[in-house]
Amino acid sequence: MAQHKKHVSPRASTPLDAARGARANFRAAIEPGRWQDVGVLEYKEEGAAPFKSITRQVLFSDPALASELRYFEMAAGGYSTLERHEHLHAVMIHRGRGRCLVGQEVRDVAAGDLVFIPSMTWHQFRASRSEPFGFLCMVNVERDRPLLPTPADLDELMADPDIAAFLGAQGSSVHT
Amino acid sequence: MAQHKKHVSPRASTPLDAARGARANFRAAIEPGRWQDVGVLEYKEEGAAPFKSITRQVLFSDPALASELRYFEMAAGGYSTLERHEHLHAVMIHRGRGRCLVGQEVRDVAAGDLVFIPSMTWHQFRASRSEPFGFLCMVNVERDRPLLPTPADLDELMADPDIAAFLGAQGSSVHT
Repeated sequence: MAQHKKHVSPRASTPLDAARGARANFRAAIEPGRWQDVGVLEYKEEGAAPFKSITRQVLFSDPALASELRYFEMAAGGYSTLERHEHLHAVMIHRGRGRCLVGQEVRDVAAGDLVFIPSMTWHQFRASRSEPFGFLCMVNVERDRPLLPTPADLDELMADPDIAAFLGAQGSSVHT
Repeated sequence: MAQHKKHVSPRASTPLDAARGARANFRAAIEPGRWQDVGVLEYKEEGAAPFKSITRQVLFSDPALASELRYFEMAAGGYSTLERHEHLHAVMIHRGRGRCLVGQEVRDVAAGDLVFIPSMTWHQFRASRSEPFGFLCMVNVERDRPLLPTPADLDELMADPDIAAFLGAQGSSVHT
């Protein structure tokens, strides 16, 4: 498994600054998918990274908030990690369009659409090849660590032709 | 104080249906500020209602989520209740533009902007006169009831010319 090392962009100096920024009362959207005083965390791909071209921004995180609101954005052709966990995700697509797997279901999604990810349900977001794709994700502060699919899990997922088409090269790469 | 009676639109039959809808995994945005299987609650104005032309939609609410995500929309000229409470609000403007009071600060806000409302801080959202204005609001499930301003609170707020201009007729109506 690839290490989830994070590269902090020049816009944010430290995660602490990002947390402080999250306590300012007004933070303007300065361009699509970018906000004043919100640091952009880029996941660095190394080895067999289970994600591609994705960044994370923490929009709201406060000790008195039971949940966080994060923003994930993929470049064209990018995708999030295929994973599952006990905790839930409550998602609104914020920008662009892409495809999304939740359990056995693969759907086209676009800005404004809502996606609910139940407990222990495989999920992944994939940008289209033509534009960035970003979504808001509300999540409990107290949560478990995500699990990645085993080869057996992937076999089971790939048995469904829609999921196999969605995962594409990623799904079969484990076997090559 | 006006009663917060709710009118449920034909799209949603009961709050329970809205909660069930919140558990569907995919719900598309069907038009700006409206979603598949999400009921629209309209606050009915009676007497000296502290709000105007505002609707509420619960986008995500689940027993395993520590927070809810709601969507509030005001028609042109509408406004939310001027209130404060112990719990926090984490807000993203979703649609249109308007003005927002947080504590002593009045700011123009537009789609994409982030607003954080600290504990026990007076706040209100006001649509422009020309277009609907909607925002997403993340809030803890466990929370206290909002407090409305007393005449003394309003006097204190109205002492600030920016806040007086923001509140307009609403701020002075208590005294007439």
